[in-house]
Amino acid sequence: MKDILINGAKKAGEILKEDFFKSKNVSNKGIADLVTETDVKIEVFLKKYFHKHLPIFKFIGEESSDSLDLDGKCLIVDPIDGTTNFVHGFPFVAISIGVYEDMVPIEGVVYNPILGEMFYAKRGGGAFLNNIPIKVSKEKKLVSSLIATGFPYEFVKKNRKDILGKLENILINSHGIRRAGAASLDLCYVAKGSFDGYYEGGLKPWDVAAGVLIVKEAGGLVTDLKGDDYLFDSEYILATNKNIHNELIEVLNGF
Amino acid sequence: MKDILINGAKKAGEILKEDFFKSKNVSNKGIADLVTETDVKIEVFLKKYFHKHLPIFKFIGEESSDSLDLDGKCLIVDPIDGTTNFVHGFPFVAISIGVYEDMVPIEGVVYNPILGEMFYAKRGGGAFLNNIPIKVSKEKKLVSSLIATGFPYEFVKKNRKDILGKLENILINSHGIRRAGAASLDLCYVAKGSFDGYYEGGLKPWDVAAGVLIVKEAGGLVTDLKGDDYLFDSEYILATNKNIHNELIEVLNGF
Repeated sequence: MKDILINGAKKAGEILKEDFFKSKNVSNKGIADLVTETDVKIEVFLKKYFHKHLPIFKFIGEESSDSLDLDGKCLIVDPIDGTTNFVHGFPFVAISIGVYEDMVPIEGVVYNPILGEMFYAKRGGGAFLNNIPIKVSKEKKLVSSLIATGFPYEFVKKNRKDILGKLENILINSHGIRRAGAASLDLCYVAKGSFDGYYEGGLKPWDVAAGVLIVKEAGGLVTDLKGDDYLFDSEYILATNKNIHNELIEVLNGF
Repeated sequence: MKDILINGAKKAGEILKEDFFKSKNVSNKGIADLVTETDVKIEVFLKKYFHKHLPIFKFIGEESSDSLDLDGKCLIVDPIDGTTNFVHGFPFVAISIGVYEDMVPIEGVVYNPILGEMFYAKRGGGAFLNNIPIKVSKEKKLVSSLIATGFPYEFVKKNRKDILGKLENILINSHGIRRAGAASLDLCYVAKGSFDGYYEGGLKPWDVAAGVLIVKEAGGLVTDLKGDDYLFDSEYILATNKNIHNELIEVLNGF
């Protein structure tokens, strides 16, 4: 299974990388949510690839789905996480593939072909970057922590005051904020200890399906903003190194 | 001159890259403004290197300066722009070297050894990424633009409402915000057309000395928030592809 996932991600990554520096023909689906030709091309490739190699799995993709039913055996796929980055040539882009059985994450791959970073995790088997084990950071205090976040366009429109209140509190209480623009990679950067925490609202299953397992297998914690288990329909996701989790929940709710 | 600058940046980059993945001993100079051993090591190297190869130039570095007088012939150097990123292993870090004569930028180099990106510009000679000419984007509207910004820690403390007001207006009126954490690279990403615009307050000469020339030589515009020439003591810097400059000034001042 691992080889099938990683080989699929690598082949999809070749398509992504080849198109990364070309000018692209972009069609709009919402003003900040661009779908590129490459996005569709990669999803078509992966759908066919997994249909051949893992036929018993349902394929749930951002651009096309066999079904929106997440029960049973599923592959939850984002062909390009960070489409806006891709369109603008900003190198934080990734292919994300999460393997689920009855809503439980079994394996996950997040691959950034531009920076050559292949993240992989297996339930109970640890998390890896290019086959080297990774761990979340040991940082204990929010004031010394680097925190990543994001602002999905549709979510911003409806929740502007909430987003700005949280951002202000993080600006005051943390070591710094990063906004790189790809949720799957933000999660992987928590897993490898670059970011001490990450939160974002309004995400979709394919944005986080692989990343949540990678964080957990690297020793991190993933919840909603109440500290309960993160579910795909939770409003916010919060992923940390565990140590700063409660402090971050307080700060994100305390305004 | 070009070869001296680029070879110096490359050698400094080797030091940076070697230390990037090591755990680091960090001393504090302000809570979000870490100085690493590597920072000092690179500056000591560059000071010696330029003293040998360009002895008539004053050396103005972040960590040590011959003088704070920027008149005459100066090398304005940031040994690591993005120190916080460096400490956390986030790959947006750069060595920045600006060459000035009587406050006029003559040449500039910004080098990210982790991603292998060498930006170079010469006054009147164009801007380059790894020897390939670069140009700012052709984007005409802010609503379709990707905008970068930053939040220097000391500046945030004093100007929180201003920063949040600007951020809110950009969130509403642009295609997206990026916060990568290294001013010199933010400028270079405007120059290569990934970001359509970039603004930040409270910066120091070494953060931007090279980047402003690289933006201008790539066809961009660099001013303060009134549209006047950017000077090292301007409160804010604004760098764009020219097309969205006036619209961005309005939005950044209109709250």
